[in-house]
Amino acid sequence: MPRCWFVFLFLSFILLLATAEASQCSIRGIPLVRNISELPQDDYGRGGLSHITVAGSVSHGMKEIEVWLQTFSPGSRTPIHRHSCEEVFVVLKGSGTLYLASSSHEKYPGKPQEHFIFPNSTFHIPVNDAHQVWNTNENEDLQVLVIISRPPVKVFIYEDWSVPHTAAKLKFPYYWDEQCLQAPVKDEL
Amino acid sequence: MPRCWFVFLFLSFILLLATAEASQCSIRGIPLVRNISELPQDDYGRGGLSHITVAGSVSHGMKEIEVWLQTFSPGSRTPIHRHSCEEVFVVLKGSGTLYLASSSHEKYPGKPQEHFIFPNSTFHIPVNDAHQVWNTNENEDLQVLVIISRPPVKVFIYEDWSVPHTAAKLKFPYYWDEQCLQAPVKDEL
Repeated sequence: MPRCWFVFLFLSFILLLATAEASQCSIRGIPLVRNISELPQDDYGRGGLSHITVAGSVSHGMKEIEVWLQTFSPGSRTPIHRHSCEEVFVVLKGSGTLYLASSSHEKYPGKPQEHFIFPNSTFHIPVNDAHQVWNTNENEDLQVLVIISRPPVKVFIYEDWSVPHTAAKLKFPYYWDEQCLQAPVKDEL
Repeated sequence: MPRCWFVFLFLSFILLLATAEASQCSIRGIPLVRNISELPQDDYGRGGLSHITVAGSVSHGMKEIEVWLQTFSPGSRTPIHRHSCEEVFVVLKGSGTLYLASSSHEKYPGKPQEHFIFPNSTFHIPVNDAHQVWNTNENEDLQVLVIISRPPVKVFIYEDWSVPHTAAKLKFPYYWDEQCLQAPVKDEL
């Protein structure tokens, strides 16, 4: 009899854990108007980054657009990457550099163009162009609002600008979608 | 002979006007990184509104997402309207009220639910739900960043919440797209 109780308690504990995990990844019960400063914020293992999914596919059921609030500490940056969706940045605070290689029809990105980005500036990344956003300002955080289409994002990462497009590595689900989006998909390129 | 000169000058003037109009509506030559405070800003005939297209279909060649920066003076508001696209709001400054009727499957919107919106809050409008954003704060401007999918936006306007969905009036092109988007399209609903 004591053994039965132990099994029962153990199974209840597992069920409780599974429910907690599911509710964290459920869009049910999420309020319509949300306080952004109360939304989950994490660096997702990338030092110097603070990422908040303001309105997301996985977390809020968005189907066509996704909005992130990201803060990069001085010196921190995105990987060199591309994605087959539109992306708009609005710089809320700080400054930095956008590196952009408009070479999606060539074999590899090559030397990127450098663009200075500054408070209250905006820019968009052409679909499939390799790019990198870097907080090159040593004195201040860079805070950006990022909007993408076709969520959840499928990112192809380059170790450097000379890696062929075909050798860029697919990262899907992306860091902030990993917890609630486990299903692998076929490389869409 | 003097008459010929007059005709020549008149035609040149018309050509010059046409070219200026065309270049204002061309996406060629637009810088990749743009200062939002230098972008065109107008009330488009709607008192109390300041609208800036931060990244747009008509003005910047966006195909899947469009971003606006809008400021509503105290008491000003959007019309009651719906659109068959996703829409996300990020409240940058001020506060107000979102009126939302989740009734796109019924005959008319009916009495909407009221939601308080506040600085650093976010919300999204379900596709085709009738809604209205109103600066109900008498003391402060309401500033929002608005993101829509499927640009350029096609808006159906209701005179009040009891107008049947089928009687809402299509406004296309919408106010800020009118100058550069003259072509009518079929009602897509």
